[in-house]
Amino acid sequence: MAVRNRPDAGGELTLSMRWRARHHAPPRPCTHRTGLTVSYERRNIREMQGYTWGEQPQDADTLKLNTNENPYPPGPAVAAALQAFDITRLRRYPPPLADDFRDAAAAVHGVTREHIVVTHGGDELLRLALTTFLDPGVPLGVLEPSYSLYPVLAQIQDCPLAKVQLDPDYQPPADTVARWNAAGSTLAMVVNPHAPSGTLLRAEVLEAMAGAFRGVLLIDEAYVDFVDPAHGYDAVTLAQRLPNVLLLRTLSKGYSLAGLRFAYGIGNPELLAPIVNKTRDSYNMDTLAQALATAAMRDQAYASGTWLRVRAERDRLDAALSNLGLVAPPSESNFLLVTVPGYWALGARAVYEQLKSAGILVRYFAHTGLADKLRITVGTPEENDRLLAALGALAGQPSRGTGA
Amino acid sequence: MAVRNRPDAGGELTLSMRWRARHHAPPRPCTHRTGLTVSYERRNIREMQGYTWGEQPQDADTLKLNTNENPYPPGPAVAAALQAFDITRLRRYPPPLADDFRDAAAAVHGVTREHIVVTHGGDELLRLALTTFLDPGVPLGVLEPSYSLYPVLAQIQDCPLAKVQLDPDYQPPADTVARWNAAGSTLAMVVNPHAPSGTLLRAEVLEAMAGAFRGVLLIDEAYVDFVDPAHGYDAVTLAQRLPNVLLLRTLSKGYSLAGLRFAYGIGNPELLAPIVNKTRDSYNMDTLAQALATAAMRDQAYASGTWLRVRAERDRLDAALSNLGLVAPPSESNFLLVTVPGYWALGARAVYEQLKSAGILVRYFAHTGLADKLRITVGTPEENDRLLAALGALAGQPSRGTGA
Repeated sequence: MAVRNRPDAGGELTLSMRWRARHHAPPRPCTHRTGLTVSYERRNIREMQGYTWGEQPQDADTLKLNTNENPYPPGPAVAAALQAFDITRLRRYPPPLADDFRDAAAAVHGVTREHIVVTHGGDELLRLALTTFLDPGVPLGVLEPSYSLYPVLAQIQDCPLAKVQLDPDYQPPADTVARWNAAGSTLAMVVNPHAPSGTLLRAEVLEAMAGAFRGVLLIDEAYVDFVDPAHGYDAVTLAQRLPNVLLLRTLSKGYSLAGLRFAYGIGNPELLAPIVNKTRDSYNMDTLAQALATAAMRDQAYASGTWLRVRAERDRLDAALSNLGLVAPPSESNFLLVTVPGYWALGARAVYEQLKSAGILVRYFAHTGLADKLRITVGTPEENDRLLAALGALAGQPSRGTGA
Repeated sequence: MAVRNRPDAGGELTLSMRWRARHHAPPRPCTHRTGLTVSYERRNIREMQGYTWGEQPQDADTLKLNTNENPYPPGPAVAAALQAFDITRLRRYPPPLADDFRDAAAAVHGVTREHIVVTHGGDELLRLALTTFLDPGVPLGVLEPSYSLYPVLAQIQDCPLAKVQLDPDYQPPADTVARWNAAGSTLAMVVNPHAPSGTLLRAEVLEAMAGAFRGVLLIDEAYVDFVDPAHGYDAVTLAQRLPNVLLLRTLSKGYSLAGLRFAYGIGNPELLAPIVNKTRDSYNMDTLAQALATAAMRDQAYASGTWLRVRAERDRLDAALSNLGLVAPPSESNFLLVTVPGYWALGARAVYEQLKSAGILVRYFAHTGLADKLRITVGTPEENDRLLAALGALAGQPSRGTGA
């Protein structure tokens, strides 16, 4: 017989296969005739829809305020690293652990190299958290609404969701963790600042959640660089103190490097070790990306300068949008989730489409609870002025109910 | 209750959770006390060992003949693409589908863009094949020996192996596919040219295997660029004709870009669609890597020039090693798997260690069936001369049995 159990798997393979034969798998587990064609996809993959990514036109004319990129380009240190890069280095495999970058990030955060794991964009860390901490069939703890990739990743891992609806002000209900625990979740994902609202949970709230949760709490800090330092928000010390907190950081927004796909996790070495040593692809970051990301991380002055400018524009844009009737909850991110008011002539989808035909992309979500909203990325002052002019023209159009 | 089934999942969640509660999961599925620390890893992850990657010193002095890199640097078109790259492009997300690269690869292979899926190194395509086509608990079909990452990826997916031992000349036994089918495998991986032996299976053999196999046959062609064109080997037409053949190609070896992590799959659009649209990370290739890889793919003349030189050196190195008593099976790859003969004073491991202390890295595998062998990457003529001189000195040492 050609099939061998792993030496340490005991009788589980047999049980697993019997269970599948009874409850789950058709006679040929992956081969299904759909009409005339044969599909080799697994059931859960066949049944799912993929992630719908934001529109990514590559031309320079479109004003892209739809996927929360930093409006400022990467800094001169990154450009210098690109110019200085020795192309012959690409002949060899990359440093598997990206230790230069880990050291640079560790210095920024006041932790050790072992507290950092490098991933190919934040999406890879999210996926690896599922791979490492959540068995198929066990629910992933999430809040609603949230980053729309979480449910997609759960479906790929064949996991249901333990969904908890956020309060109208985007705060998690007091029984959130109790409900995740009751569902048996061993992993939950919380984005903070929240997407798509931009609101910030205090670190004390997260600490209480992590302390009560029986699994790993992944705090997705994709937008944390834009939080006003006056709040004193800090989850890094939380990730050091607690054994089950995994922070996600990315260079996509704060460091103007969405095109480079470079992110990292922060957590205790014991929590990160299985990701570092087992579940990630061994060479998950290329040599060139490592060089550029390391240069970006070492130049905190440039990056934090962009954060300051984005925050200033966020406040100005927020006030100007409010004047047009487009009100957003308080954002600590680089975007604003505005509600298109009922007295406007156009609904949110129509506003999105009108802006698009004017060469301005914002993000519209067709989901429940978001269908009257638009998520608008904070741009440069000039870009925001162009957006405000276009919205001002739309606001002035004859209203639906009363005529003009 | 916060947990909701996916709308189309029927009652399977309940069954799954009941089954887990009975047979599989401890009361807290992911939280186990091991000594004094709490582990959040899944059982299968906790029980596995990670992949052992080849040594990757980044210095220029070490002669690296251990991980099958191309001995020649990336070509001038790649260097020009690096110099011409506009750093401000990195501010935005990359083209999600990497269509420029797909078009370049499609032109090379005489297929359409839809026959190509781009992945972050070949390792990502291997992982995605498991994610897409193999349910946890279902055996992955493999041949033994083979690329040592396959079993690691199977463990991450919590799948056992349906192992079939290769014949002494590295040919698969006639009943290989029958055994995979009997085991219920819905995915099998065959590396061709074979690693670590370098031998080539004819496309007719692969066609017969794919035709008989009930699942997806992934043919890992990481080394195919080094096959002598005189053999007329071609599996691309096979991947077009058959619905269940997925080819893996990489720029790591043939295009001197191991550091860039750029690979791709070739298969029918229906087979690739779930990987393209569902299971891969949406932005799985960064903008800069896309630009460099596209330039490399468009410059076939440079790449094929390196293949020609490697083949010529492979023949010369093979003959010279044979003269030292180090015989390898016929290789169509860029490496040779030599057996250290019993009459040498040193065994394979000792030879590996002696070479390493001389600044020359080759690959030693401690596995059954490989413990008397070394895998040696073909270098430049000068590099091969340095290796041969070092091996000649070791061959001349007093032998174990007879004295000198």
